Amino acid sequence: MATSVRGGGFVLPPAAAGRSFSSQSNLLSNRLLLLPKIGPVCAPRFCKLRSSSPFAVEPSATIIDGKAIAQQVRQEIAAEVSKMKESVGKVPGLAVILVGTRKDSETYVRSKKKACEEVGIDSYGVNLPEDTTQDEVLNFVKKFNDDPAVHGILVQLPLPKHISEEAIVGSVCIEKDVDGFHPMNIGALAMQGRTPLFVSCTPKGCIELLVRTGVVIKGKHAVVIGRSNIVGTPAALLLQKQNATVTVVHSKTPNPAEVTRNADIVIAAVGVPELVRGDWLKPGAVVIDVGINPVEDLSTKKGYRLVGDVCYKEACQVASKITPVPGGVGPMTIAMLLSNTLESAKRAYGLVDAAP
Amino acid sequence: MATSVRGGGFVLPPAAAGRSFSSQSNLLSNRLLLLPKIGPVCAPRFCKLRSSSPFAVEPSATIIDGKAIAQQVRQEIAAEVSKMKESVGKVPGLAVILVGTRKDSETYVRSKKKACEEVGIDSYGVNLPEDTTQDEVLNFVKKFNDDPAVHGILVQLPLPKHISEEAIVGSVCIEKDVDGFHPMNIGALAMQGRTPLFVSCTPKGCIELLVRTGVVIKGKHAVVIGRSNIVGTPAALLLQKQNATVTVVHSKTPNPAEVTRNADIVIAAVGVPELVRGDWLKPGAVVIDVGINPVEDLSTKKGYRLVGDVCYKEACQVASKITPVPGGVGPMTIAMLLSNTLESAKRAYGLVDAAP
Repeated sequence: MATSVRGGGFVLPPAAAGRSFSSQSNLLSNRLLLLPKIGPVCAPRFCKLRSSSPFAVEPSATIIDGKAIAQQVRQEIAAEVSKMKESVGKVPGLAVILVGTRKDSETYVRSKKKACEEVGIDSYGVNLPEDTTQDEVLNFVKKFNDDPAVHGILVQLPLPKHISEEAIVGSVCIEKDVDGFHPMNIGALAMQGRTPLFVSCTPKGCIELLVRTGVVIKGKHAVVIGRSNIVGTPAALLLQKQNATVTVVHSKTPNPAEVTRNADIVIAAVGVPELVRGDWLKPGAVVIDVGINPVEDLSTKKGYRLVGDVCYKEACQVASKITPVPGGVGPMTIAMLLSNTLESAKRAYGLVDAAP
Repeated sequence: MATSVRGGGFVLPPAAAGRSFSSQSNLLSNRLLLLPKIGPVCAPRFCKLRSSSPFAVEPSATIIDGKAIAQQVRQEIAAEVSKMKESVGKVPGLAVILVGTRKDSETYVRSKKKACEEVGIDSYGVNLPEDTTQDEVLNFVKKFNDDPAVHGILVQLPLPKHISEEAIVGSVCIEKDVDGFHPMNIGALAMQGRTPLFVSCTPKGCIELLVRTGVVIKGKHAVVIGRSNIVGTPAALLLQKQNATVTVVHSKTPNPAEVTRNADIVIAAVGVPELVRGDWLKPGAVVIDVGINPVEDLSTKKGYRLVGDVCYKEACQVASKITPVPGGVGPMTIAMLLSNTLESAKRAYGLVDAAP
């Protein structure tokens, strides 16, 4: 019997993990223990999850339908793009740079281009071979930086190892950094009295889900689990900008369950399947689950299914509102990418006074 | 009898403020209520503080002697400057730009120059009249940006109202931003895997006090009270980079006392005299008090005395370690400015491999 439980960098000492420890122990004594930390969106990896749950009653939480909300956002964007075309004769343009042939990256890039098409945004793509040099990628970024028809530049991550992500992301001019990953945008997000030109798409999508389902953020205690540059950190900064009191829980937090139980709003973005159990939550908490983790499920055709960072069945009994996986945050990310591209084009054509 | 209590933007509903409310109420029913939010270092303003305290026993906390630690840091810097002079024949240079004739700003600038002298750092100063235009200030920044003998540029804040602080701070090249106020430096501080070239002096001083007094930060719960760009926000980001679990309490937090009671480490940087009472603290907490607030005291020659954001007498009974005011964080700020200038010069002369 293990004396500590690991998952995606999280080490939960039995005493600190409290009531959830026994179930964590069951959960994590299987192959999940061997899983490296995986991002909120990742290629299929296989692991087993126990199928039984101590929570057997009907769920009480309202399901936040990310798919429907994203659809609504896209319709609004399509209407604005159409209006822009009428008023200035131009539409927004998004350039996507893909290096290599990762299947998941190719799928994401295809989805993004398709989404652009559907709302009337022009997409410009370049698919580069795996062995492209850093300088060659930088040249493509420069080309798109200089192209007035391009209002957003997205470099699909991860990049091959011989290319510095920091150098490439930092080379995108901040006026076209629709991913919001540039340190200048993160800095402005962190600072009082500053407004970033762009907010990263997934965190922006999380806040949009809260706002569009009538969740008040101001004055609430929010706990963000995970502190990645693309989700956790900007989500925490964004919640604080909206006047929540924010705590960031991470792999070095000895008592994540205890800290999370203080939260009115939980954003889980850590990439560990079902880490957040029902008893990590305060009754009535609102739960936004960013995780999309494939776990082995031989009963399905593909042999796996997707679960979030939150144990959905258990959380449904405790939370007041919750996002499902899939169909929660996922669809919002691309919708927010379109939204950022539209905003950028509006700024370029003088259709807005200032940053959003 | 007021039903809510205000101070520096903080509104504490009676129920949320808990046991501290009655004393808060006594404290804040006087002229403090009328005080606008003031920075951690400010010109004298006058207000009354009650002199009695429910805590009458001897203090148990160890006093963190910021003056002695700052002195030690300065000696280390002096030794390094001396070594630099021997090895490359150069010393670090700090340029200070002062606009206007604010008495407090003039005092700070004088202190900074004197501190430079004492450790062998060259200081370059320019005192500009109140009606200097923004372009003129920008020209001086540019001149110092281009001067290889200058390794740090400090624009004394606040600037006159007709000059944009954002424009001036943003014009300092990030390699010389020894104040660490540039959004690129704040962004890098917030991001995983990035190291800012400089960390703002006061937050850096707070962490230095913790480290030099043997306080373990990793895995601890830290609460930062206040979210200013110059102290609260960078302090929170820095604590998180050191692997604390961090919560930021601010003026929209409905239950600051309750949240602060979870903290192993408290950094108070809100500019409200004695806001943090003894019962806001968990027994054994470490308290770093950044506030320097003048309060009316007719028994003193000047008619006022300085108090922190923490009620020192009460906190001493509960905390394990605490900084006094004055003599705590204050002396560390200038020491860290010297430290940042030294680091910058070391980078310029190739005496270090990377950012600190």
